[in-house]
Amino acid sequence: MTDLYFDDLYPGQRFVTPAVTISETQILDFARVYDPQPFHIDAVAATQTEFGGLIASGFQTLSLSFSLFFRLGIFSAANLGSPGMEEIRWLKPLRPGDTIHAEAEVIALKASQSKPDRGIVTMRHDSFNQDGALILTANCLHRLKRRV
Amino acid sequence: MTDLYFDDLYPGQRFVTPAVTISETQILDFARVYDPQPFHIDAVAATQTEFGGLIASGFQTLSLSFSLFFRLGIFSAANLGSPGMEEIRWLKPLRPGDTIHAEAEVIALKASQSKPDRGIVTMRHDSFNQDGALILTANCLHRLKRRV
Repeated sequence: MTDLYFDDLYPGQRFVTPAVTISETQILDFARVYDPQPFHIDAVAATQTEFGGLIASGFQTLSLSFSLFFRLGIFSAANLGSPGMEEIRWLKPLRPGDTIHAEAEVIALKASQSKPDRGIVTMRHDSFNQDGALILTANCLHRLKRRV
Repeated sequence: MTDLYFDDLYPGQRFVTPAVTISETQILDFARVYDPQPFHIDAVAATQTEFGGLIASGFQTLSLSFSLFFRLGIFSAANLGSPGMEEIRWLKPLRPGDTIHAEAEVIALKASQSKPDRGIVTMRHDSFNQDGALILTANCLHRLKRRV
């Protein structure tokens, strides 16, 4: 896709990412460093938890889903970083062998009052597994350059 | 620290984590997989951005900060996973060589109406760098077992 700037976006505009499959190794590698809880790092112990088996760290699900979005490349030229996120909801686990993709929609656009070269877009970011089940939602703010 | 359950928590209760220093390699390794933007994956290109140099992915800062909290071990027995987070704000960048620690405070406690063995705690989670500057804030929900 081509580079998009703040001015190219409009409410309701949607983007769909490719899908990626996560392996048990990827889940373990991430969680051992960033989220060392039994249901993320120990496939045997995880069977004794409510999840019934290993699940990815929510932080990994979040990061992976947004990586799919950033790899679309649409914000490669315009992105000035994110000031924050709202309403993250982990609705279903991501398990070894699951395939995830993301769908993002422009919710709101706010041009900066103090800096005329930029604005903030709020995007609804939904992530789905291979069964079409919604597993993660979030509203992300992206600080983007304007076409100047 | 010892295991804490939902019933052991009270509003205003605070926890402070040890600090950890992040390296350029750690920043690059994470971002190449999960957040491949120039200011996260290319130390040279990053100098040409507003950040003036390489900065950690916000997802890495978030994950790393919560890993410090989980490594306290206080929720090791009780944690049933997180339903979500609110009000994530990335206030300042985390740069190579920076040292981060987290301070968490119990904000609210809500026992489950439908499942008497659990409740949800809302925790304010603040992350600071080596200069004492607040770099990240978030409100995280944790689903915890009760003492039953």
